[in-house]
Amino acid sequence: MNRIITIGREFGSGGRELGRRLSEKLGIAYYDKEIITEISKRTQLSEEYVHQVSEKRPLISFPIHVGQSLLVTPDPVFQQNMSVLSEQYKLLTELAEKSDCIIVGRCADYVLREMNPFRIFVYADTESKLKRCMERSEPGEHLTEKELRKKMKDVDRSRAQYCEFCSQQKWGDKSYYDLLINTSGKNIKQLSNSLYEYLK
Amino acid sequence: MNRIITIGREFGSGGRELGRRLSEKLGIAYYDKEIITEISKRTQLSEEYVHQVSEKRPLISFPIHVGQSLLVTPDPVFQQNMSVLSEQYKLLTELAEKSDCIIVGRCADYVLREMNPFRIFVYADTESKLKRCMERSEPGEHLTEKELRKKMKDVDRSRAQYCEFCSQQKWGDKSYYDLLINTSGKNIKQLSNSLYEYLK
Repeated sequence: MNRIITIGREFGSGGRELGRRLSEKLGIAYYDKEIITEISKRTQLSEEYVHQVSEKRPLISFPIHVGQSLLVTPDPVFQQNMSVLSEQYKLLTELAEKSDCIIVGRCADYVLREMNPFRIFVYADTESKLKRCMERSEPGEHLTEKELRKKMKDVDRSRAQYCEFCSQQKWGDKSYYDLLINTSGKNIKQLSNSLYEYLK
Repeated sequence: MNRIITIGREFGSGGRELGRRLSEKLGIAYYDKEIITEISKRTQLSEEYVHQVSEKRPLISFPIHVGQSLLVTPDPVFQQNMSVLSEQYKLLTELAEKSDCIIVGRCADYVLREMNPFRIFVYADTESKLKRCMERSEPGEHLTEKELRKKMKDVDRSRAQYCEFCSQQKWGDKSYYDLLINTSGKNIKQLSNSLYEYLK
């Protein structure tokens, strides 16, 4: 069976960088945004839309047919969201069956649970995450500190909702992971070296 | 500044064994039950009594002096408990100042927070802990599975209460640790090798 490492991470904690560096050191595949691109191709929906669905709890909206039937039917938007999730599920399984790999986000720890993944969760205190986000903001992306704090909160809330929707598990709860790493005030490159030594 | 590693652990998770093996590999001091013995000597109270106090929230009982005074004074038992905690506090600081070391339990992560300890928390699922306890029960200690489950729960509740009494922190909450290790179904010797590689 392939070696699967999944990484859940708080926004701004450096989990993505940690995963990428670790994959380079271990010499195994790394999947993150690539998953969105592939699902977008398969479903012919925009990457932005797929991203919206694939890390948020899909909004379930039922049309109301008064006096017609007591049976509620999901509407087309709901079905479209479900098809994204279904493609994501299939794709994660395909990737994990293809080779050793690291997968960031997408509730992969739960989806691939039968393949016995090593489940990592990366987190940090708010100030550390804020500092990392400030240092790494892309040119043209000028969020104020207040806006950034709100974004951090919103993204993490969406991830938690998505995780709970898919798995009924509490996102970031230690009982669902093998190793939890606090990156507060730490250097991600050094941490990736330590983690490589732990896992090699 | 010395290198201080603190280990908080759920009962039966193998945290103590992990700490002892890690100290041997790193070649640094290891403190666990030794702390009880030393405090017992210093306070001239029995080891059993010191153990009771040093990992449980001290029972605060105030005598009621009706009609005498509105000022409540702690009773001798309370003062005795406080002297154990005070000795423990002093001893932990002495040990951490003496040399690099690993300290298991005793809320050392909080007491020594100014010395920037590396704070580990070790945990596992109930069935794994139960299995470990069954395998390691000492001759003469014949607890039924039901009794063992109760003991695990009671000990962890005491540790949590003690931690919250001393530090106002939630025991086992990931925000208070640098690394959390799930030992469910894992071999502690192998884990200690991995952890050594992570920390060396």
